[in-house]
Amino acid sequence: MKILLTGFEPFGGSELNPSAAVVEALASDPPAGVELATMVLPVIGIEAGDRVVERIESESPDAVIMLGEATGRPGISIEQIAINLRDYRMTDNAGKVASDEPVVEGGPDAYFASLPIMRMVESIRTIGVPASRSLTAGAFLCNEISYRVLHANAIANRRIPAGFVHLPRLPEQCLDADTPHASMPLDRQIAAVRAILQTL
Amino acid sequence: MKILLTGFEPFGGSELNPSAAVVEALASDPPAGVELATMVLPVIGIEAGDRVVERIESESPDAVIMLGEATGRPGISIEQIAINLRDYRMTDNAGKVASDEPVVEGGPDAYFASLPIMRMVESIRTIGVPASRSLTAGAFLCNEISYRVLHANAIANRRIPAGFVHLPRLPEQCLDADTPHASMPLDRQIAAVRAILQTL
Amino acid sequence: MKILLTGFEPFGGSELNPSAAVVEALASDPPAGVELATMVLPVIGIEAGDRVVERIESESPDAVIMLGEATGRPGISIEQIAINLRDYRMTDNAGKVASDEPVVEGGPDAYFASLPIMRMVESIRTIGVPASRSLTAGAFLCNEISYRVLHANAIANRRIPAGFVHLPRLPEQCLDADTPHASMPLDRQIAAVRAILQTL
Amino acid sequence: MKILLTGFEPFGGSELNPSAAVVEALASDPPAGVELATMVLPVIGIEAGDRVVERIESESPDAVIMLGEATGRPGISIEQIAINLRDYRMTDNAGKVASDEPVVEGGPDAYFASLPIMRMVESIRTIGVPASRSLTAGAFLCNEISYRVLHANAIANRRIPAGFVHLPRLPEQCLDADTPHASMPLDRQIAAVRAILQTL
Repeated sequence: MKILLTGFEPFGGSELNPSAAVVEALASDPPAGVELATMVLPVIGIEAGDRVVERIESESPDAVIMLGEATGRPGISIEQIAINLRDYRMTDNAGKVASDEPVVEGGPDAYFASLPIMRMVESIRTIGVPASRSLTAGAFLCNEISYRVLHANAIANRRIPAGFVHLPRLPEQCLDADTPHASMPLDRQIAAVRAILQTL
Repeated sequence: MKILLTGFEPFGGSELNPSAAVVEALASDPPAGVELATMVLPVIGIEAGDRVVERIESESPDAVIMLGEATGRPGISIEQIAINLRDYRMTDNAGKVASDEPVVEGGPDAYFASLPIMRMVESIRTIGVPASRSLTAGAFLCNEISYRVLHANAIANRRIPAGFVHLPRLPEQCLDADTPHASMPLDRQIAAVRAILQTL
Repeated sequence: MKILLTGFEPFGGSELNPSAAVVEALASDPPAGVELATMVLPVIGIEAGDRVVERIESESPDAVIMLGEATGRPGISIEQIAINLRDYRMTDNAGKVASDEPVVEGGPDAYFASLPIMRMVESIRTIGVPASRSLTAGAFLCNEISYRVLHANAIANRRIPAGFVHLPRLPEQCLDADTPHASMPLDRQIAAVRAILQTL
Repeated sequence: MKILLTGFEPFGGSELNPSAAVVEALASDPPAGVELATMVLPVIGIEAGDRVVERIESESPDAVIMLGEATGRPGISIEQIAINLRDYRMTDNAGKVASDEPVVEGGPDAYFASLPIMRMVESIRTIGVPASRSLTAGAFLCNEISYRVLHANAIANRRIPAGFVHLPRLPEQCLDADTPHASMPLDRQIAAVRAILQTL
């Protein structure tokens, strides 16, 4: 089984991004029986979405799992939905913001992830890592690439599992705060994403 | 160096308490050069304080580190202060509540922990675990035993390091929640408390 | 202009629901030029959705604004989206829970509210009341009636403004907590909903 | 009865401070039977404490109520304690920070407010405004002036009610946020502080 696994470069002033670290770790040690194609995407508006969609078209994976960081969330969250909205005040890594615009002009309002969400949540909890379904992935890059992929799959009638998973910050990103954010060590994040891949 | 290290039994419906788990782990594998006396205290009003004070008097440790669980806190927090207030709606394990009463009738309003707090915070961060100073330990049992110990030390003129450290929940305590609390794996909690002991 | 304005009965142990109180206040003092049809709906799964859809069909309003309570949110939130998911552990007022099931079997994944959301947010801020767009209305009754209405409008090709607005708790609901939730006085909530109606 | 009521100037980039607004409102319309002396203090380290202590010595009030803003808190909070610690990363209005230093060299660790705290909490709830006891006023200016006043009263053996009350932000301070903080309208804040003064 060939799975495309993507992460993001660091952004917002941090020098780390758990999603990139997890992708790199699993690239060099994939689950048994899984052929892994990996990408660490730039945190740049349209470019990130373009690149992941092109890779799906060239690579024809059997499933797509996209990873990103959700500052402040304490557990792994499997995203239920991607919405046709781009809206952020925090600049991406090209210095751009967006205000109340569609990801894809004329696209449907939203797509549910084509993932066995609650089965994935259970498989993560089974290894002792907190996890839950999330009902919003925001309206920043994480949502955007998720919408782009689900939209491209719908148009091409590619009936493969695909969706977005938000990861907590790494402890190393929370060492100078007077009041630390929630975080999760890298080894647990890797184990959780490995469990996700094994449900596919 | 002899250090008294205490934790608490589970309470509030949970079957685990990270403080008990950390005490047990360090009891069987103490830091080099440290003689560890350990206790896992009942979550019962006056009894918990009585027992730890008696143990200090019989054991004459060189330092006292008390551990407890702080639901929702994402990092290790070293408590700055213990206050002469007992006030809780959540029952202790004997079914008691308390309303606006002193821990020690006629005692001073509060005691600062006699710990090198910011040095401890730094030593924990050095091993990659989020930590911070906390300005309140609440008005439940954690605060109570801390006040009792600092008060007993003041009265007996025992000039030893003593204070309270709040630990996050364990991931295993956060597996059935739709929205998980912050948590920290046991191995990191053990490493953090080991780092604290090594600053003494 | 005829607007259907709905609220919910109290639920979850509270004796109040700000949405019912706002509906009652505006029913007896509607904005100038607005004919208001109002409903206070039972917090009961399918029944609430059935009743509001039937009323739209019998009443043919020019717009539909549905109100509900969002415990903990500090400002007025205009919901961007309603999703085809019913999933709640907290019982409704008929004692029912729901697990990972669709609101409408075979319906689209989600509908965006057909409201001028950011214009409504601005109109509320103009009168000094905090407001924002929300990207999730949860998967309880609030989301359900919103999905039901947007779905019924889509099927009937009723191109009218319709959507859901979450209100903070009333201060009166936060008087016995040791740590109060966010709340907003009723007069400000009424003024905010009045401002929403006046943007239509 | 003569009461000294103090607030603070705006800080941290805001143009408003609810404590100044409440002081100004009550100065021009004090509760019946109360002679009110008022100050709006600069948010500048030692100066703020110096000025309020000097005013107490020159004015000889029968009670001192100090007000300040607590960003994010949803209700009125009556502070239990002031601690002998000055520690803040956020600059005061003179551009100063402080790190782990005492407010008063050699002073006691902390003072409880000399206020009927739970009676004040009840009197505020009686008028429908959320309120609670708070166990920490932080280690910024609010704590500092509270400590300075309670210490000066202790030294001079002035047995008068004195303490600090944290107020939520005003709604007007929360109008541009994508995710608003908790806030409380000025009229409710004024009513709550009026209720506090009337318990004295």
